Amino acid sequence: MNETKTLASYIVSNRWEDIPADVRHEAKRSIINVFGCAIGGSAHQAVTTAIRALGPFSGERTAGVIGRVERLDPLHASLMNGISSHVEDYDDTTPKNYSHTSSPVSSALFAYASANRVRGRDFVEAFILGFEAASRVGNVVYPAHYDVGWHITGTIGVFGAAAAIGKLIGLNEQQMIWALGLAGTQSAGLREMFGSMGKAFHPGRSAQNGYAAALLAQAGFTSGERGIEGPRGFAHVTAATRDLSKIGTRLGVDFDLRENTYKPFPCGIVNHPTIDGAIQIHDADRPDPASIVAVRLRVAPLVLDLCNQQNITKGLQGKFSVYHGAAVGLVRGKGGLREYTDEAVNDPAIKRVRELTTATGDPSITEDQVKIEVELRDGRRLTKFVEQSLGNIHRPLTDRQLDEKFRDQAVMVLPADAVESLIQLCWNIDELDDVGQLVRTSVPGAAPVERETVS
Amino acid sequence: MNETKTLASYIVSNRWEDIPADVRHEAKRSIINVFGCAIGGSAHQAVTTAIRALGPFSGERTAGVIGRVERLDPLHASLMNGISSHVEDYDDTTPKNYSHTSSPVSSALFAYASANRVRGRDFVEAFILGFEAASRVGNVVYPAHYDVGWHITGTIGVFGAAAAIGKLIGLNEQQMIWALGLAGTQSAGLREMFGSMGKAFHPGRSAQNGYAAALLAQAGFTSGERGIEGPRGFAHVTAATRDLSKIGTRLGVDFDLRENTYKPFPCGIVNHPTIDGAIQIHDADRPDPASIVAVRLRVAPLVLDLCNQQNITKGLQGKFSVYHGAAVGLVRGKGGLREYTDEAVNDPAIKRVRELTTATGDPSITEDQVKIEVELRDGRRLTKFVEQSLGNIHRPLTDRQLDEKFRDQAVMVLPADAVESLIQLCWNIDELDDVGQLVRTSVPGAAPVERETVS
Repeated sequence: MNETKTLASYIVSNRWEDIPADVRHEAKRSIINVFGCAIGGSAHQAVTTAIRALGPFSGERTAGVIGRVERLDPLHASLMNGISSHVEDYDDTTPKNYSHTSSPVSSALFAYASANRVRGRDFVEAFILGFEAASRVGNVVYPAHYDVGWHITGTIGVFGAAAAIGKLIGLNEQQMIWALGLAGTQSAGLREMFGSMGKAFHPGRSAQNGYAAALLAQAGFTSGERGIEGPRGFAHVTAATRDLSKIGTRLGVDFDLRENTYKPFPCGIVNHPTIDGAIQIHDADRPDPASIVAVRLRVAPLVLDLCNQQNITKGLQGKFSVYHGAAVGLVRGKGGLREYTDEAVNDPAIKRVRELTTATGDPSITEDQVKIEVELRDGRRLTKFVEQSLGNIHRPLTDRQLDEKFRDQAVMVLPADAVESLIQLCWNIDELDDVGQLVRTSVPGAAPVERETVS
Repeated sequence: MNETKTLASYIVSNRWEDIPADVRHEAKRSIINVFGCAIGGSAHQAVTTAIRALGPFSGERTAGVIGRVERLDPLHASLMNGISSHVEDYDDTTPKNYSHTSSPVSSALFAYASANRVRGRDFVEAFILGFEAASRVGNVVYPAHYDVGWHITGTIGVFGAAAAIGKLIGLNEQQMIWALGLAGTQSAGLREMFGSMGKAFHPGRSAQNGYAAALLAQAGFTSGERGIEGPRGFAHVTAATRDLSKIGTRLGVDFDLRENTYKPFPCGIVNHPTIDGAIQIHDADRPDPASIVAVRLRVAPLVLDLCNQQNITKGLQGKFSVYHGAAVGLVRGKGGLREYTDEAVNDPAIKRVRELTTATGDPSITEDQVKIEVELRDGRRLTKFVEQSLGNIHRPLTDRQLDEKFRDQAVMVLPADAVESLIQLCWNIDELDDVGQLVRTSVPGAAPVERETVS
């Protein structure tokens, strides 16, 4: 009956000790994943453009921006972190509601922690609570909310950022109710922006606006008391059907974070089984790409609806080509950010394999599956059936695979020693005295990490 | 079929000469009205609180804030102007869609013009185009959008601010399409905030976010091309039913601004006939308040649903009391901001008349009407039937009544000579070389207006 208050009370009263060990560990996995995505996306034109447009309006430049040399005020830094961490569509996914919640929540937290000294365990706790707040609000309105056209990452992320920053700055219950209300009344983000920079703007603005909501509430700026469940509140207004019981049920016991998933490849998830299977063939048989004469895919019919582009010249188009996915897996044994550049799409070896790949829709193949047959010049046929795609909830990336994903992105921006230091810092984040160290170490040309601050 | 492009093209290509004289005049009426509301609301706790919370994050303080001594960057100044101009619920109303559009549009424009030199006619043109853009987007989604719970002033205001600022900074058509798209994807504001500071936050944030949308678009930050009409765009996502033809029909010929209305009293519009009629009795008969023994109202039944509070002690409660409206009209012959303070509500003479006032719902009385009967100690009965309430579209405030409304608010903040100068400046705004002069003159303790800059 009073879900905003229930959620606010939980966030305010939670203690670090209340959080189960497996949830803490999953939080670290989410943080290393999203932090790597932010570094990987930090040089993207969307970030550069946003800094060019809004940087001149920055307040006192007390905050670092992940992966960038520019400094901004913490609110603008939140925006930029949100853009960079989502812009390659490489961040995490919560299968319950298909949100990418780590981006808005962590983006505000990293900005805050780079401008204010924050202990690692406080940071991780705030992340877990912000993630849970956002995801539960998402569960209330999913799927009607997403189906009508809301980009749920943007619309619920603002609740998560407000909750996380509100926890760190010590809001009381009344202030947290206002912070959630002010989050709800700023909730925005249209799926019509997909395919433009506007998509990554959503988690960025959510991070920034959630952070601002917490600051306003702390100062005594009031909102409606029932921002989530009220008759003209977020749930009613943005979803034709809704289930408010999702806020309070087993709160503090069940954690959506436990079901978070991490993309192994920076493209639409329906291509993942093909890339995964192609990499497995590459690793097992090491076929010479020049020896490949045909690649035959049997895929879920949806794959051909979404990712049927064959004649492509741009990296971005590669993300919508299952043929390109097969080719990079077979030729390079990888499907990282560098396999989705213009260079990779126009690489002659990749282009050749892509062009001799065919795909057939098969209703007996699920969206997590693929059957691949590679025919070689000598007549041999290499086959692979992927039953559960790497990265889905039944076959999660291992911690070491997350390291590798982080490394693969971060080395584009940072020297190798800084990258390895950051990987260690991420796994030890709950032991840090000062999480701002992560942001500082992510800045190109920054001094090497000060190890002694790991307590 | 491509309404975003249609609207963008219109805004970009319009010239001052294309705007009919009566529309220019109505723009001035809207500007003097909303500027006065911003001055009147500038000392409100909501503004002070927002400045306390977010002022420390201000960028270079190049902009003035209407009615305040603090300076902020233009984006934050837009937010504060939006809060102050709407916080007393005293701004304008467009009866077609019940939005209060001048607040978000003018708030961004005043902030921009206080930090950048803007000619008056450019300012007025941008205001007219921003108002029209917002109101037409509102017409597309009204009434389903409002009925489900969106605060339409917030949700459409962001389009208006983006259009207005985009016009002033000279966006081309493609950039204006992106600005409108980035506006749409930030569109927000829940009616659940009514009764809290969150309500006035909506036009403020709309002004700020629309302004930012224009800056981002100018820098090349892309959005979806069909932010308004796309299958996952603003209209589809936020309204169960919609009429996209409202964007393009007679664009540049019909202007919603022509139908803008201005509240004579800072409270819910259903109380207006009663206050109006009570003031007419006061002015005609000058009854001694102490001689009043009964006041009997016949009102539309909705009035008793919304404004039936009788035992009140706070100024804010007075806004929801038709009895208080009758009392201030009869006792003071006025219903301005000062009649809705705690002091006024507790004024013994007003309290006495309020407590002997009764009201009867009568389905034959429209929401624009009232029948008032005042019984005096000597047995006389003063009666008044108000057929069209002052301020509605059939009985608009005159220019001189707008002056009086402005004066009544501005004298709470500014010396009388500055107030009179501002009234003159507003009526001559299209002749000014530098509209920033208005904002500067609105600052308490500011130097007197430099008359020579009126060209």
